[in-house]
Amino acid sequence: MEKVAEAIQSVKLSEDQNGVVILDQTLLPGLKKYETLTSANDVWDAIVKLKVRGAPAIGIVAAYGVYLGVKQLDPQNTKELHQGFLQVKEYLASSRPTAVNLFWALRRMEEKLDLTLSKGHSIPAILEELREEAELIRLEDEKVCEAIGKHALTLLEPGTGILTHCNAGAIATAKYGTALAPIYLGQQEGYDFKVYADETRPLLQGARLTAWELSEANIDVTLICDNMASIVMSEGKIQAVLVGCDRVAANGDTANKIGTSGVAILAKHYGIPFYVCAPISTIDLNCKNGQEIVIEERKSEEITTQWYTEPMAPEGVKTYNPAFDVTSHELITAIITENGIIRPNYQENLKEI
Amino acid sequence: MEKVAEAIQSVKLSEDQNGVVILDQTLLPGLKKYETLTSANDVWDAIVKLKVRGAPAIGIVAAYGVYLGVKQLDPQNTKELHQGFLQVKEYLASSRPTAVNLFWALRRMEEKLDLTLSKGHSIPAILEELREEAELIRLEDEKVCEAIGKHALTLLEPGTGILTHCNAGAIATAKYGTALAPIYLGQQEGYDFKVYADETRPLLQGARLTAWELSEANIDVTLICDNMASIVMSEGKIQAVLVGCDRVAANGDTANKIGTSGVAILAKHYGIPFYVCAPISTIDLNCKNGQEIVIEERKSEEITTQWYTEPMAPEGVKTYNPAFDVTSHELITAIITENGIIRPNYQENLKEI
Repeated sequence: MEKVAEAIQSVKLSEDQNGVVILDQTLLPGLKKYETLTSANDVWDAIVKLKVRGAPAIGIVAAYGVYLGVKQLDPQNTKELHQGFLQVKEYLASSRPTAVNLFWALRRMEEKLDLTLSKGHSIPAILEELREEAELIRLEDEKVCEAIGKHALTLLEPGTGILTHCNAGAIATAKYGTALAPIYLGQQEGYDFKVYADETRPLLQGARLTAWELSEANIDVTLICDNMASIVMSEGKIQAVLVGCDRVAANGDTANKIGTSGVAILAKHYGIPFYVCAPISTIDLNCKNGQEIVIEERKSEEITTQWYTEPMAPEGVKTYNPAFDVTSHELITAIITENGIIRPNYQENLKEI
Repeated sequence: MEKVAEAIQSVKLSEDQNGVVILDQTLLPGLKKYETLTSANDVWDAIVKLKVRGAPAIGIVAAYGVYLGVKQLDPQNTKELHQGFLQVKEYLASSRPTAVNLFWALRRMEEKLDLTLSKGHSIPAILEELREEAELIRLEDEKVCEAIGKHALTLLEPGTGILTHCNAGAIATAKYGTALAPIYLGQQEGYDFKVYADETRPLLQGARLTAWELSEANIDVTLICDNMASIVMSEGKIQAVLVGCDRVAANGDTANKIGTSGVAILAKHYGIPFYVCAPISTIDLNCKNGQEIVIEERKSEEITTQWYTEPMAPEGVKTYNPAFDVTSHELITAIITENGIIRPNYQENLKEI
């Protein structure tokens, strides 16, 4: 019997291994269109134009980009290969200078190159190893997401009403997503979740992406405006909140998409468990607490004019547009990682994992 | 010295008394355009097209519409006048069948007519009395708003950061608004409030109307998305929340624009007082508590496509779009009416006022 809720893979190597197939996220939710990127140039362009978004997905496509770029240089000796690699790496690093996963993936590819060069492997062997490393980065992310999903699923009953915020989904990762992973895995086992997706203003990732990818997987999803989270909780529609995160501090304070802290406060008020799904890589023990996390402020137009047929606010009105907020550890029922579920006291238990 | 923060009057009789001047709210925030309505037809059209919105403002313009409509019929005797009145009244009542204030104002005009007919007044005298009654309805609403504002102002310090949700402002009433009334009155006394306006999805009344009318009055207003209410509170930017209401139950539970209950929960979490500004007319002692209030559900398109250049959610996605929610009396610091400030126990104290 076919699985009913297969998560989308938004980045993968093409079958002939000469390209990387991506889902163009800029066309969502109107159009589901895959595109094959066949050069480092294409990959750079796809990252710049946000065709690929989501920290893990950007890292993965950049790793594939390095492989494609170096292969196409057709290096005649290892010196040419090394120089070419560094050029391609630098070029791809310029595509989105604030993306931590991008640099992490590029560094990891370079470490692989250095290792294989030091062993004196042949050029075809090195290219093969670069391809394998990129594949490994993708596969490891998929495994991380799947493991988070399996752990989180132990906390959820069949039929549960789940609220989620923003998009911590399959299309932001190799597969499954983080917060959405247990939903895909549960659905495959017939859990019949009822998911409520906050639209997530101003950029509407919940409406454009989460509602879309869950619908694609035939999961029961209901789109609401952010300010409707309270009423759906008060009406008994929600038994668990699942969100992703950008960074977890040593005390469990968590930075995530703007609005997350509000949802956590509502969940506490209504006695609903609030779960943060966090790959170990997002836990930053060097960051003592949420006060140390700097919140990015973004441009006014995202609130006042973007998406709209005409301006939706008086011209020149002052706005405040923080991209993230910090959810206090006191509001978090558990943090779910690929290595297991962490409960308070986070200060102690985050170190151990 | 000129007052710095004069509230807009969005509905008033024209100087020659042959028309009613309205601010066309459908053109906001892009264009501030007044229009003179010179017939019952015009008034009907303005209500249907939402050029006039806000319960009190609709009642006021309908009262003027009755006066204009009857006058233009040029009745030759009181029988003609009475029949004409009933036709005009029925016609205007059809403009927005769910607007309680519309019917209330039309009934009040009819009571005036019946009284003056019973006294055997002349036709010019009756027309004059209808005009005066319509003026009185407007003036009384202005006095109610001003009184609410004065009472509320006693709760606020100069320099206070105030969060408001939706539009309970001048343009929804005769003048001043309800929740915004203390802001206008305080500003006239140099209180220098810092106002944060929730944009209020899906219909964006906060962005389109509240931010606009406060900007027009040179009040310091910052527009935020609904999901940013938590971060502005956590950052110490807010010392009071002021909201309007549609209906207050006998126990103090309050129905207001969707999202209000969430703001109240956040305010409680952060220890910020949450004030409901409520004309006595909105208090419904026959309604025991919030559970008896039926919440209107509105169409999906408001969330998925309205305002947007292209669909912002997958086609056919399920939505939940309640227009209001109920804020529990336990979350309300005080209810502010034209007759004074009501504090808990609301069950007792609402009766007394």
